Amino acid sequence: MGRVFSNMSMSLDGFIEDAHGSVDQLFEWYTSGPVETKTANDGVTFNQSDEDAELMEQVVAGIGALVTGRTLFDLTQGWGGSHPVGVPVVVVTHNVPTAEEWPHQDAPFTFVTDGIEAAIAKAKELAGDKDVVIASTTIAQQALDAQLLDMISVDLVPYLLGSGKPYFANLANKPVRLENPTIRKGNRATHLTYEVRY
Amino acid sequence: MGRVFSNMSMSLDGFIEDAHGSVDQLFEWYTSGPVETKTANDGVTFNQSDEDAELMEQVVAGIGALVTGRTLFDLTQGWGGSHPVGVPVVVVTHNVPTAEEWPHQDAPFTFVTDGIEAAIAKAKELAGDKDVVIASTTIAQQALDAQLLDMISVDLVPYLLGSGKPYFANLANKPVRLENPTIRKGNRATHLTYEVRY
Repeated sequence: MGRVFSNMSMSLDGFIEDAHGSVDQLFEWYTSGPVETKTANDGVTFNQSDEDAELMEQVVAGIGALVTGRTLFDLTQGWGGSHPVGVPVVVVTHNVPTAEEWPHQDAPFTFVTDGIEAAIAKAKELAGDKDVVIASTTIAQQALDAQLLDMISVDLVPYLLGSGKPYFANLANKPVRLENPTIRKGNRATHLTYEVRY
Repeated sequence: MGRVFSNMSMSLDGFIEDAHGSVDQLFEWYTSGPVETKTANDGVTFNQSDEDAELMEQVVAGIGALVTGRTLFDLTQGWGGSHPVGVPVVVVTHNVPTAEEWPHQDAPFTFVTDGIEAAIAKAKELAGDKDVVIASTTIAQQALDAQLLDMISVDLVPYLLGSGKPYFANLANKPVRLENPTIRKGNRATHLTYEVRY
């Protein structure tokens, strides 16, 4: 059975965007090495260190579905209907986009309007034995509060941003105790994965 | 020549105290293992994992002087004149305590009233070839802003606290770029040390 985990690139001081909404520093590890990796989206190619490329390959191979929020979906214009990870995407939203708003009707995107539990249930169904990954701080927060998040994955980036958007901003129950992490070194990111202990 | 570094236990979400000023969760790694270590202060004993005890021994052996702020000095009542690390302590303050206020006149404590640069210069002089460690977020911040901080050391603790006091709250110049860290595993803390790139 797959696990449900969130994954974000985060600065050492806890931000997943700087105060201007930029992720340039946080995503340096996608472009800081010699190994070129093509993705399921033709427009997106990574150039990473050996360690980062290997990690990314393993993580991506384990992902069966993604859950995202409407904000990121809109910001990326739904990845043009083709998410780089190449798996089904569940979008948590209040309103399903119309056919005019979302021309990629054949793309593997599912819009769920009845909350986080339904969205994760749908994603698990789509993922089968693989993992469900949440790529949205708002959705990750909701999943954590609902005790649906098995693991928190952090690509910890060697920058102090000083301000910006935190990974987990408004915990319903705190503190949240995590297990000791698994740790993998990279170039411009240290990859930490923590199991959540509820 | 020794280096100047700051060292704090910090939650995964970036806090060095919770919203109530407690460090109970953050200091679990001092008491989460079988290895008992006595300190220079008779009242303070640690019980740590093998890895944490070994790390602590190595770090402590490298420290030649500590720099702290007046708040922590007052909070701990000057460690009764005997800091657990057993090295000279430089206290950055606006007012030198009187002999009544500070009865440990023979203890290796130096009070510096003319700012961060003078305090670090004094600490380096006292430390000789060893390291100067800053154990105060305010002083660490000032040292970083003055480009006097060589390294930032973090004992990264597997908790989300949700709110509290950040390690670096008000950076004069941001972002601050750090090098890839050295990484050591522990029990209830992952030990990361970053060189600062100015």
